[in-house]
Amino acid sequence: MARIVQKYGGSSVGDTERMKRVAQRVKQYSDEGHQVVVVVSAMSGTTDQLIAQAKELHDNPSEREMDMLLATGEQQSVAFLAMAMHGYGCKAESFTGAQAGIETDGVHCKARIKNIDPERIERSLEKGNVVIVAGFQGASEEELITTLGRGGSDLTAVALAAALNADVCRIYSDVDGVYTADPRIVPEAQKIDRISHEEMLEMASLGTKVMQARAIEFARNFDVELEVRSSETDEPGTLITRESEEMEDKAVHGISLDKDEAKITISRVPDTPGIAARLFQVIADSSVNVDLIVQNVSEQGYTDISCTVPEADLPRFETDLAEKIRTELNTDEITSDKSIAKVSVVGVGMRTHSGIAATAFQALADADVNIKMIATSEIKISCVVPLDDASKAVRTLHQAFGLAEKTSGDE
Amino acid sequence: MARIVQKYGGSSVGDTERMKRVAQRVKQYSDEGHQVVVVVSAMSGTTDQLIAQAKELHDNPSEREMDMLLATGEQQSVAFLAMAMHGYGCKAESFTGAQAGIETDGVHCKARIKNIDPERIERSLEKGNVVIVAGFQGASEEELITTLGRGGSDLTAVALAAALNADVCRIYSDVDGVYTADPRIVPEAQKIDRISHEEMLEMASLGTKVMQARAIEFARNFDVELEVRSSETDEPGTLITRESEEMEDKAVHGISLDKDEAKITISRVPDTPGIAARLFQVIADSSVNVDLIVQNVSEQGYTDISCTVPEADLPRFETDLAEKIRTELNTDEITSDKSIAKVSVVGVGMRTHSGIAATAFQALADADVNIKMIATSEIKISCVVPLDDASKAVRTLHQAFGLAEKTSGDE
Repeated sequence: MARIVQKYGGSSVGDTERMKRVAQRVKQYSDEGHQVVVVVSAMSGTTDQLIAQAKELHDNPSEREMDMLLATGEQQSVAFLAMAMHGYGCKAESFTGAQAGIETDGVHCKARIKNIDPERIERSLEKGNVVIVAGFQGASEEELITTLGRGGSDLTAVALAAALNADVCRIYSDVDGVYTADPRIVPEAQKIDRISHEEMLEMASLGTKVMQARAIEFARNFDVELEVRSSETDEPGTLITRESEEMEDKAVHGISLDKDEAKITISRVPDTPGIAARLFQVIADSSVNVDLIVQNVSEQGYTDISCTVPEADLPRFETDLAEKIRTELNTDEITSDKSIAKVSVVGVGMRTHSGIAATAFQALADADVNIKMIATSEIKISCVVPLDDASKAVRTLHQAFGLAEKTSGDE
Repeated sequence: MARIVQKYGGSSVGDTERMKRVAQRVKQYSDEGHQVVVVVSAMSGTTDQLIAQAKELHDNPSEREMDMLLATGEQQSVAFLAMAMHGYGCKAESFTGAQAGIETDGVHCKARIKNIDPERIERSLEKGNVVIVAGFQGASEEELITTLGRGGSDLTAVALAAALNADVCRIYSDVDGVYTADPRIVPEAQKIDRISHEEMLEMASLGTKVMQARAIEFARNFDVELEVRSSETDEPGTLITRESEEMEDKAVHGISLDKDEAKITISRVPDTPGIAARLFQVIADSSVNVDLIVQNVSEQGYTDISCTVPEADLPRFETDLAEKIRTELNTDEITSDKSIAKVSVVGVGMRTHSGIAATAFQALADADVNIKMIATSEIKISCVVPLDDASKAVRTLHQAFGLAEKTSGDE
């Protein structure tokens, strides 16, 4: 008998028919004698509809009230799924995040999980129930409803798997796994059988939106093994797991793409100590999230700094922030470019295989893709390229690293 | 400065426009310096839609899960109303029933309020907030979400008014008060300015569906003065209050009508002690609610017993219960009649005015309305009449007691 946590996304429970299919799948595992804890998102469309109604009442609704409102989406899902389970003669009980013992730090709309008290879930499991928990939500110490941010149901599942010492944590959705590249761009992309948390983290934060990055980070920190798979088939998906030696056999595991960033360059900044700190403090004060940062010396006494920010933050940058930076850094030369994309080569093997960067740059050069910015970490190389060349860059790199052949490290 | 509890029904908050109008009305009172606690129902249609979805998943959904599901309707309403209040620059905080300290006995779908801990509401009021509480719901000691049954938001409002020592408790809806009779049947019916809890209770349980009967009972027990008024106008409505002497000046305050009952007659029951107890125990065991009961001696050694039950329970009665009663009471003569209506004359003054019953029966006789059953209490006289004669009976009695003239006891 295993203890299994399963998470179903909004599209997997998007209507009553799909809800029933999920119930049947859950029942299979329960019938086999496993203890099953199911985390469910709001039915697809529900959250967007509630947000639209809220906007009719206030341009910028209070975050406390948004949490109160949006938490109802998942609460409806868990009740519906419990009813569907009962319909198949399976014992089941639903719980809100608060009832499931998920305690958060109380920051509305982007709460962090502080603690999970799984006692109530344990009691319900002991009584032979399938336990159904509302994803995306918890309660603060003051018993205020708090939500974990978009995609927060993944985090709920991972955190529960850790707190309950689950044997398996499966994330079901409408994709059947993590691919070496987006199959819409690279038709010969392969499903990856096994990938490390670190790589998945780079893939997730770099735009392969299979799972919420925070959930993967949590899984890495608490050593939770995850599987991403389809809710429509019985095929195995992609295992996201602790790094193993075989994974390094292959230098590169995937190519990810993010088209939603913009590039900002501040040129001819006086090159004095602390200049970067001041710049990014100004930016941070405006709650603009910076992703890549690159600094170059341009000419004596001056430096250029480039960074990427979410494209959605660019208008705010241009109207408000740019002026502050001009004043703070005493420079006029601030340019922005939203016609860019970030293409990244990801793989833990990179650490032990040399020449990966060179191969990547050469391949892009051969394909006439101009690289505007480069940033690297231990396990990834990111290149900012013109938006129009994004797909070509992904295809080029996918081919350069032979990813169309089966890539999993464990075979 | 007064402390005011206001309750808005589902149609008063049926869409975002109406939600905004409610917000403006609440703001008026808040601006005048009053402390305002608002109880809100689910937006009209929401509850029915959720029930319909539930039925797609299970013919007879678990009551625990129905509570989990339906409580989201009110939770959405309170968040929306808080946002609307913020939109008008008014401080407001929303609370679920559980957060508002409403503790119930844990009976799902028809919980009773056991206790209210108003501490959290008091703190929010002290901070200058309008406090918005989800009606219809609470939580059991085990922190399970429980609902109070249809119309339970009225009960929430009355119970909060009692717990908070409110000066005023106003029930807003799409009717502007309690009338001497249904204005659709008696166009000259008058709005009643002031009525006692006891009379209102008889009116409510006798089919004048302005307010939930349990809420009025609670108000009577805790001496909460209520006002029923329209959410669309600023007109005063009907005050439901402790009985006062002036109220007795007028013998009859209103005529109520209930068309949703059926009459059951069990004839030639052996007239032995305990026979009624056995009969109604059998009926109670099937959870059929009995309203009126009349027993007559028919011939020596035998008796007839008639009662009325909700028409909705009649099929259950005919298939299942009738057989049990035949066995238990050893009688074959069980008949039922759903083409009946119950017309009631209500007034606290009845106790001190004689001849009310005689006047009522004579008026019905003059109008050729056949009375099939009579039952009386201290402050009402109910007659069961043929369904086809129901409207005529109401009009006849309305006229017989001169109710078209202004009837309030306080003028």
